[in-house]
Amino acid sequence: MTANYLGNREIGIRETEPEPPGPGQVRIAVAYTGICGTDLHVLHGAMDARVRVPAVIGHEMSGVVADLGEGVTGWRVGDHVTVMPLEWDGTCPACLAGDEHVCQNLTFIGLDSPGALQRLWNVRADHLVALPPELRLDHAALAEPVAVAVHDVRRAELAPGDRAVVLGGGPIGALIALVARHVGAEVVVVEPDAGRRATVAGLGLAVLDPGSTDLVARVTEWTGGAGADVVFEVSGAAAAVLGATELVKVRGTLVVVAIHPEPRPVDLQRVFWRELRILGARVYRRADFEHAVELLASGVIPADRIISRVEPLTETARAFATLEAGQAMKVLIDVAATGAEA
Amino acid sequence: MTANYLGNREIGIRETEPEPPGPGQVRIAVAYTGICGTDLHVLHGAMDARVRVPAVIGHEMSGVVADLGEGVTGWRVGDHVTVMPLEWDGTCPACLAGDEHVCQNLTFIGLDSPGALQRLWNVRADHLVALPPELRLDHAALAEPVAVAVHDVRRAELAPGDRAVVLGGGPIGALIALVARHVGAEVVVVEPDAGRRATVAGLGLAVLDPGSTDLVARVTEWTGGAGADVVFEVSGAAAAVLGATELVKVRGTLVVVAIHPEPRPVDLQRVFWRELRILGARVYRRADFEHAVELLASGVIPADRIISRVEPLTETARAFATLEAGQAMKVLIDVAATGAEA
Ligand SMILES: [Zn+2]
Ligand SMILES: [Zn+2]
Repeated sequence: MTANYLGNREIGIRETEPEPPGPGQVRIAVAYTGICGTDLHVLHGAMDARVRVPAVIGHEMSGVVADLGEGVTGWRVGDHVTVMPLEWDGTCPACLAGDEHVCQNLTFIGLDSPGALQRLWNVRADHLVALPPELRLDHAALAEPVAVAVHDVRRAELAPGDRAVVLGGGPIGALIALVARHVGAEVVVVEPDAGRRATVAGLGLAVLDPGSTDLVARVTEWTGGAGADVVFEVSGAAAAVLGATELVKVRGTLVVVAIHPEPRPVDLQRVFWRELRILGARVYRRADFEHAVELLASGVIPADRIISRVEPLTETARAFATLEAGQAMKVLIDVAATGAEA
Repeated sequence: MTANYLGNREIGIRETEPEPPGPGQVRIAVAYTGICGTDLHVLHGAMDARVRVPAVIGHEMSGVVADLGEGVTGWRVGDHVTVMPLEWDGTCPACLAGDEHVCQNLTFIGLDSPGALQRLWNVRADHLVALPPELRLDHAALAEPVAVAVHDVRRAELAPGDRAVVLGGGPIGALIALVARHVGAEVVVVEPDAGRRATVAGLGLAVLDPGSTDLVARVTEWTGGAGADVVFEVSGAAAAVLGATELVKVRGTLVVVAIHPEPRPVDLQRVFWRELRILGARVYRRADFEHAVELLASGVIPADRIISRVEPLTETARAFATLEAGQAMKVLIDVAATGAEA
């Protein structure tokens, strides 16, 4: 059984005949698949040029090894695994420089090729990341977004005692804040939506409403007149970008995590004047992914409070509707469950 | 005798009674003072909120120690010197972090306090930088803009074999290209003005006309499909900023050197996608200034080909007019000379 994006904002469930794993592939019995903002973009048709309908999407997942294709070593049936959904060519200048995660010809599993919204999924063995048996499989489905947060915090070179501002309190913003706090930084999240602010506050994080707070004054006071060491731009909003440079200390760092579909006005005068550093941060390296699994297994990431809802595979459309309504932090699909069982 | 900005786009020459150097000050007999784009902004009234008329401006200079104020040690009458025109408070967070050159309360000698367009100039001894006696004083007046270029190249962490693009072929762009080449980088300058292109080419630098060149295609071919390691934005043009991110390799660097008075559209999608790094770079550290003097003394910077014209102090207004006409690379004022002598 697979959940499919059919085009025209439609999700459909299809029964398909599972294929055996090919050479070098592992068959995974998918346990949980998370859906995220990118999946919602697919549903809205924004990625129709990239996905081929009917498209099995989904790139945040956990599962159990169910079968091994020819030549696969290092994995056993029953192993708990997640998948790092990046495919690089290994030959472009970025790959040759060791930056495979930003390969110039990177493809993304679950967008450019079939993803995890299917019960039995064949994946090349080198994409697998091991999960410790004690990590619950629903929690493990957060590994991919946590890996994004780990990568962003590492890209920023955030250090203990640093003060960081996270602009945007959605799932990625909240995870960045949690990882940053774990690194030893003091963190404040900025989020205009009251419901999201409540969720972020529920994670024990400081959160500010930009509508009722003079952010520059607050951050200036908080940092003894210096400004924040690091600002993470996770909102995707033009106004946030323009304001972000006001919050960064001399020689501080602004990390661009969000997607900005159009060029945004940036205060380059401020960038020059304070010698700021702006860094793009995209996806993750394998080390980030493995560290994300550790943070979930050790409870640093309070997965139970981040998972808002779990729906069976047959109710994937309802899960997307919940995500679209905007209050859910993370919605998971229980891929093994049917509506009747759930 | 001093040259003064009087307001209303006017320059006037005034005879003034020289004051003796105060405690901690050195009296310098100014030899040469360069004028630059910032001085032109002053003349155009753009900095009227900052300068107090009549204003003795000028911050690129060379001279000879003529007298020592009380308590000054380490300098002797007759020493050749230049002045690093930055004053920091030493107490703000940036200063405490060791980044005095971007002090949050930085003031600039020659703008916020009297500058070098005067025959006898009293300056605090700690602003002096020694010149080797074999360095010609007209050449030494380039130390300040060369220090800017040294700082920009160091900020970019440019390495031997790197490929760099310099957007803008004015004096600072040309100096950055020369310093980058000296570091061992391959460099190409992009400049729309034909006269400036000829001057840059005369320095032995590769130069492209953006009006008749597909820059992305050219840089892609030049770099084997990777993109430039570093792009220096020295033009101040909005279009250059928007195009600059197209030229940078994955994880490459864009250095913002120019003044951008208004926020500029930046392709943050590209910054994210390629994990680019954007760095502001402003003025210089003392080490940059000292290295600039070395580069001038060793002939790495071909000062004779950069100095377009020398005018006596009495003809300061004519010197500004020459600079304003746009073809001169660097115009110096011979501060000791009079119109009759020149
Ligand atoms: Zn590649
Ligand atoms: Zn300071």
